[in-house]
Order: sequence, then structure tokens, then C-alpha cells
Amino acid sequence: MDDKISLTEKLAAFSDHFSPKTIGHLNDYKLLLVKVKGEFVWHRHEKTDDFFLVLDGKLTIQLRDRNVELSAGELYVVPRGVEHCPRADEEAHVLLIEPVGTANTGDAGGPMTAPDESL
Amino acid sequence: MDDKISLTEKLAAFSDHFSPKTIGHLNDYKLLLVKVKGEFVWHRHEKTDDFFLVLDGKLTIQLRDRNVELSAGELYVVPRGVEHCPRADEEAHVLLIEPVGTANTGDAGGPMTAPDESL
Repeated sequence: MDDKISLTEKLAAFSDHFSPKTIGHLNDYKLLLVKVKGEFVWHRHEKTDDFFLVLDGKLTIQLRDRNVELSAGELYVVPRGVEHCPRADEEAHVLLIEPVGTANTGDAGGPMTAPDESL
Repeated sequence: MDDKISLTEKLAAFSDHFSPKTIGHLNDYKLLLVKVKGEFVWHRHEKTDDFFLVLDGKLTIQLRDRNVELSAGELYVVPRGVEHCPRADEEAHVLLIEPVGTANTGDAGGPMTAPDESL
């Protein structure tokens, strides 16, 4: 990625939900944008923490024992191995950072598993 | 880091320039906030890319052959080994992500090398 990345421009380039788009890399990590609306699937990542920074809207990260409620400008790192399920009643825009090769659905798999897509 | 992190709250907790504060971790990476005003030092990181996301204000990342001009909501990843020197005429607030153990001044060292500080 040789030039700067405008999050606003990248967000304007797609509209589907729960389908993260790679916008850049940091070493062997992917930088992704995702639009969330509705409820994802419960899953965990056994080998990596999971970074969420809300850019617009509100995101609930459901954990088994509580909910983490995030607004724009708030971030949360789900520790590796911890089951979670993101949810947003209204569309939310989120920056994700995760190691290359991480599946969005973690151990759960299934139809919400997104292909690798770059913008 | 067990709870959500508000970037606004963390930014309100310090005022010094060029002294990044660790606000969380993602695996073996640190998440840091820094306030930039003036010019930093030219340096490079031989072993890691360098992630900058501008939250407020404007940041110029000077490279040897050009400048990358970032406004709020824009990010740039300086590739590993590439000399750079951040600069901001007015105070800018920036989210940094880098491997634990990375010195802010890279190969340059010197008096602007910041201690590890967490918020």
C-alpha cells in the first residue's frame, strides 16, 4: 500500500454487511473495514486477539457474560479465545485489524465466512 | 486490557508532544496515542512497518522523496526501512500501532526517544 488511505473514501466504495474489505497491511496484519448491521455469529479466534475500532454508529460486542457497547471513537480488543458476537441495530462502520489468514467467523465457519476482498 | 477504550478520554489524559502513550495491546503489538506538534526526527524502523491514523488535526509524514499529508480519518503505513519524519504545524492526534519493543525514534535514538508509558 503505497499511498495514504482515506477511511471515508473506502467506506463509500462498498455497502454489504459483515463482509470485511482489506484496505492495507501492517507487517503480516490486515487492516479491514466492515459495515455491520444486524447480528453476526458467535465465534472465537484461538490464535489471535480481535481489534475493533468503531468509526461511525454503535456496535455491541456480545460476550458470554456481558456486552461491550462501543460508539464512534471507542475500541475494544477481544482477547484470543474469547467467544464473541458483534451486533448493531443500525449500520455501524468499524476498522478491524487481524493477522493475515484470520477468518472473520473464527472457529464457527458457516455461511457468514467472508472471502478475502480488497479495496 | 479488559474494557473498551475511549480515544477521546485517553487523549484528554495527557498533553505532551511526541511522547506516545500505550492504551492497549493487540497480540504483541502496542496501541498508542500520540500528540504531535512541531517536527520529530528523521528515522526508520528496520524490522517493522509504522502505522499512523490521524484522529484530529493534520499530520505530514515527510519521506525523503515526498510528503504524505494526512487529515483526520486518513491513515498511512510507512513501510519498514523507509526513512520518515512526522511533522504538524498545529497539534494533531494520532493512533499508532507497532510491535512491543519498537522505539519511537527507530534507528535515530537521541533525546526524543520516549519512555514506555501507559494510560
